[in-house]
Amino acid sequence: MTNVAIVGASGYTGGELLRMLLNHPEVEVTEITSRQYDGVEAHKIHPHIRDSGLVFKNKQPSELEADIVFTATPHGASMKIVPDILETGAKVIDLSGDYRYKSRDVYEKWYGMEHTSDAEAVYGLPEIYRDEIKKANLVANPGCFPTGAILSSYPLIKNNIVDRIVIDSKTGVSGAGVNPSETTHYPNIADNVNPYKISTHRHMSEIQQELKGFEGVKVSFTPHLVPVIRGIQTTSHSFLNEENEDITPEEIRELYQKEYGDEYFIKIMDEGEIPHLSSVRGSNFAHIGGFEIDETGRLVMLSVIDNLVKGASGQAIHNMNILLGLPEQTGLTHFGLHP
Amino acid sequence: MTNVAIVGASGYTGGELLRMLLNHPEVEVTEITSRQYDGVEAHKIHPHIRDSGLVFKNKQPSELEADIVFTATPHGASMKIVPDILETGAKVIDLSGDYRYKSRDVYEKWYGMEHTSDAEAVYGLPEIYRDEIKKANLVANPGCFPTGAILSSYPLIKNNIVDRIVIDSKTGVSGAGVNPSETTHYPNIADNVNPYKISTHRHMSEIQQELKGFEGVKVSFTPHLVPVIRGIQTTSHSFLNEENEDITPEEIRELYQKEYGDEYFIKIMDEGEIPHLSSVRGSNFAHIGGFEIDETGRLVMLSVIDNLVKGASGQAIHNMNILLGLPEQTGLTHFGLHP
Amino acid sequence: MTNVAIVGASGYTGGELLRMLLNHPEVEVTEITSRQYDGVEAHKIHPHIRDSGLVFKNKQPSELEADIVFTATPHGASMKIVPDILETGAKVIDLSGDYRYKSRDVYEKWYGMEHTSDAEAVYGLPEIYRDEIKKANLVANPGCFPTGAILSSYPLIKNNIVDRIVIDSKTGVSGAGVNPSETTHYPNIADNVNPYKISTHRHMSEIQQELKGFEGVKVSFTPHLVPVIRGIQTTSHSFLNEENEDITPEEIRELYQKEYGDEYFIKIMDEGEIPHLSSVRGSNFAHIGGFEIDETGRLVMLSVIDNLVKGASGQAIHNMNILLGLPEQTGLTHFGLHP
Amino acid sequence: MTNVAIVGASGYTGGELLRMLLNHPEVEVTEITSRQYDGVEAHKIHPHIRDSGLVFKNKQPSELEADIVFTATPHGASMKIVPDILETGAKVIDLSGDYRYKSRDVYEKWYGMEHTSDAEAVYGLPEIYRDEIKKANLVANPGCFPTGAILSSYPLIKNNIVDRIVIDSKTGVSGAGVNPSETTHYPNIADNVNPYKISTHRHMSEIQQELKGFEGVKVSFTPHLVPVIRGIQTTSHSFLNEENEDITPEEIRELYQKEYGDEYFIKIMDEGEIPHLSSVRGSNFAHIGGFEIDETGRLVMLSVIDNLVKGASGQAIHNMNILLGLPEQTGLTHFGLHP
Repeated sequence: MTNVAIVGASGYTGGELLRMLLNHPEVEVTEITSRQYDGVEAHKIHPHIRDSGLVFKNKQPSELEADIVFTATPHGASMKIVPDILETGAKVIDLSGDYRYKSRDVYEKWYGMEHTSDAEAVYGLPEIYRDEIKKANLVANPGCFPTGAILSSYPLIKNNIVDRIVIDSKTGVSGAGVNPSETTHYPNIADNVNPYKISTHRHMSEIQQELKGFEGVKVSFTPHLVPVIRGIQTTSHSFLNEENEDITPEEIRELYQKEYGDEYFIKIMDEGEIPHLSSVRGSNFAHIGGFEIDETGRLVMLSVIDNLVKGASGQAIHNMNILLGLPEQTGLTHFGLHP
Repeated sequence: MTNVAIVGASGYTGGELLRMLLNHPEVEVTEITSRQYDGVEAHKIHPHIRDSGLVFKNKQPSELEADIVFTATPHGASMKIVPDILETGAKVIDLSGDYRYKSRDVYEKWYGMEHTSDAEAVYGLPEIYRDEIKKANLVANPGCFPTGAILSSYPLIKNNIVDRIVIDSKTGVSGAGVNPSETTHYPNIADNVNPYKISTHRHMSEIQQELKGFEGVKVSFTPHLVPVIRGIQTTSHSFLNEENEDITPEEIRELYQKEYGDEYFIKIMDEGEIPHLSSVRGSNFAHIGGFEIDETGRLVMLSVIDNLVKGASGQAIHNMNILLGLPEQTGLTHFGLHP
Repeated sequence: MTNVAIVGASGYTGGELLRMLLNHPEVEVTEITSRQYDGVEAHKIHPHIRDSGLVFKNKQPSELEADIVFTATPHGASMKIVPDILETGAKVIDLSGDYRYKSRDVYEKWYGMEHTSDAEAVYGLPEIYRDEIKKANLVANPGCFPTGAILSSYPLIKNNIVDRIVIDSKTGVSGAGVNPSETTHYPNIADNVNPYKISTHRHMSEIQQELKGFEGVKVSFTPHLVPVIRGIQTTSHSFLNEENEDITPEEIRELYQKEYGDEYFIKIMDEGEIPHLSSVRGSNFAHIGGFEIDETGRLVMLSVIDNLVKGASGQAIHNMNILLGLPEQTGLTHFGLHP
Repeated sequence: MTNVAIVGASGYTGGELLRMLLNHPEVEVTEITSRQYDGVEAHKIHPHIRDSGLVFKNKQPSELEADIVFTATPHGASMKIVPDILETGAKVIDLSGDYRYKSRDVYEKWYGMEHTSDAEAVYGLPEIYRDEIKKANLVANPGCFPTGAILSSYPLIKNNIVDRIVIDSKTGVSGAGVNPSETTHYPNIADNVNPYKISTHRHMSEIQQELKGFEGVKVSFTPHLVPVIRGIQTTSHSFLNEENEDITPEEIRELYQKEYGDEYFIKIMDEGEIPHLSSVRGSNFAHIGGFEIDETGRLVMLSVIDNLVKGASGQAIHNMNILLGLPEQTGLTHFGLHP
């Protein structure tokens, strides 16, 4: 058994880590920490996690005794504690944005704070960075929007098919976290659609880092809050570049099948099949479809993930499995909750 | 009092016409027809419309005695009855797609049926075609998606600002009508986002007719069903053309204010204000906002309407008011139902 | 024109008063007050109420110049300002719980604070207290749950038919007000049912006051939050007393029709018709149905209202119309927003 | 490995059986049948169940080769095929209502059809009938409402505490099945509460059979459809009998803890804890709380289950585990999907 600790375990991503890790056959959750809920039993905060025996403790990072530590802490907080945890000898999977950026400048511009840690991290999108993750001590778990956006468009970028991508995403409200706000107030969300930060969301910079690295592609992003608890539905509108203006939908589908063919968690939809949030609800799968080109040369790609699983805690456990040399799907084989 | 009849009054647009016309000070609804519900009281089908005294009748178009007739009939059915109604001397406002197209070929391509009527119609978007509507005998009430899409982008087209528009719309389920189907089954819609006809929705052709008429702009459209009863939220991603690559958000806002300044039903959002479906729920208003340009030269515009009101029955009553020479807002002054 | 002021106009009931009063033909809203939003335009808080020209002012009660003042202030706050407003000569309709009780002790027990005002009020349920309201200077607008509960059972009590009533109510989230909390956090409400204060909700005491006054009937109440924005659905389980154990459903329906026959805002459902929240959404109507007796002698009655309209602001305007001697339905004739 | 077949596997309960059985360590699903979808791959109907290799077959019951057969067939259909399946030597778990009744008359009265099978069945509520289930060849899986209702009140009945129970249940829409209807049409369900069969739902007879067996208690039942996909929330209003009018909430809690103490799938809430649907969403747990008595002698008990899991397919797998002599929780240890 591998010992696992979760730092900042009282939020939604902490709850999801618990939900899945407590059914994981190869690890044991030995510690969950929270500054706010020191001494409180887990089920008082996560009412579905009952009889786990776990109690939140307000522990210092350096006091943790675990082989793997998940830091489910806010942006800015992670970089203050991760170096200390690494010194205990644990491997760390950080769910904040702190270690996702290749450029410190880009981080500081979009997160509005100084970056103070030199710890080296690997961007934890296993489908792209699997080999690097294997050797890492610190994995920066990707953002939820970027996970859906990158997976839906990466084969286009890798194969140099398009010159512009507009990513129009619709997210469930759990992405805003466990704390109530005007944004998450039921009467403001239900029966409504709320675009926000329509040209300035910080996840745009993370998406651009991963999709633009191959040069010269314009990437835009607009998120919308929809009346959904979990899930990110991404519609990616791309424009075929000149060399590919005669490419067919079927050729693009084959490109995706080739790129993702062996990936356990990626499912390419059949022709005529639309990916649905409900198919991945609560699961670590990403469903990818679309593959249509209209008469203006616009290619439409679609993806769905559960923002709290593939977009956060499930992907983190996937990364853990890689770090531990386990079969990648261990503890993550459950299907989505449809309906 | 003007006598008004509604043909095909048992659907959602029929119910909305009733809801608003029964509170309209200048008209009286004298006849509501339905083939299916002959002899049935209105409230058995529209449970909110009580004690109206109205009863569905299965009447022939030529038997109608009314000054204004709304045809809330399906595509294909309208063109079979509108000519007969026009012969009774009534003016007709048709809520189907049958008379919206300047080109019969485009209609036949997208609706998959022969067009068999020569009646001349005006496209009933008052903000653009007010003068023509005044003189019309037959008004083709615009589609719901086109109303939201055209209003959000028309000033850009008229002033030749952009060379490509991608319209990403999110619609409430009432747009699918009153008849149950797999598409409208609660467990398939709730907590979900369903893109559909992602590059082939027939409303794309109607949007293109109105926005492309000014030449050379590529217009694409993808609709999504979201867990909302009423409303269409439209996010329009446009790309500035070369001559306008330095235009500012403020200049674009001024363009919209100039274009729509006196329009009673169009509200331009203040800076920082996002249009919400709940603000227009049940009302004939369209809220327009956005006005942001990102570093790739993409302009984001947003609009919201109630698909059954501004996108259908409210706009039809607006057209009726114009036909009758009434103040345009008569009977349509109620605000949206927020929250 | 009658001048009307709204004190505490920034909440949901304030917004609803505005929405309806701005379309009311006989009154003008001249002042809206808010301590928090002094100087802010109405549409910044109520995004649907646009171009009203109204601006929140932080005014003292004694400075108000209006014929009718609505106090949409919290419990405890109303009793501090109502006496001063009455001194200006205005008539007051108070939407808080402060003046609803015949017994000061009951108020103090359930609201947990001392009652400090001697102003005399009439309980503003027009269907029962119409004559008293006509002569009042201060009307205590009923609570939302009590409105739905009392209307669904009052004829049973008045005619001495039952000896026990269990009221099981399901309410929309707008009843919790405009301020976000854990209770109104979207992920806690959506796809969920939340019973709360299952035997101790303070509205139970208000219901008991009105239904028990006729002696000896046991009245219980349990509320549930459901994923609905507006509306209260009440299921009333009553037990026939010995004298009435052979009464038939049809006799009970006739009792209700006799009791409510002329009431504009009360609609008795036909046989087989279930009242729906959507039928009254946004309107001042109450729909009442049920009329079934099972083999255990339990009678099931059902009612639906919009908690913000018939359960608050619409009923307040109804009371205003009575105070002003206007036709009672003035400004309140709009039907519900179905679907 | 035990071979398992599912008859009528294309509905929601079939999908749920698949979702859970494909992750069950001790059984293999070898056959799924459907008359409608002969030859269709599983994921075309259950879009979340991908790469299972399973294909629907239109097989005769007598052709099935399996150790355990789940019949997820409609009422009336099960009794036609179960005897033939039993003859193959398989044990059968039937998810319809056909074998739940001790009295054929009661079945025929409430289901409106003749009962034509003599096969002997055990009522498959493991918490009550565990010992009988172990020895059974045919298990009648309980109805969804009865599961929630019986579990919430059984200790009261067993210990003779109350003389009347009113069960007011709120159910998610998946309970109405996979086929669209007016009842499940999104605009009729969303933002609404729909009571139905308020005194005549057939599940009342099943609840009465199990709760009344101990004599003399009046049991009533009213269901409501709420805007929820999965889950049944039950509020049970009971009236203390004379001998127990002084019993305390704490004594009742202890009664429940004693009764259910060792049950893996039953969780008794702490004081002040309300059971939430989200805590059991997708899981086989039942959460029970309430334990409040008001001044009229009414006891309020609350329970939540997932109607498709504990109320159907999960309970069926629980029964299978018992039949197979496996640890009862095998394959059912996952927690609910909160949020």
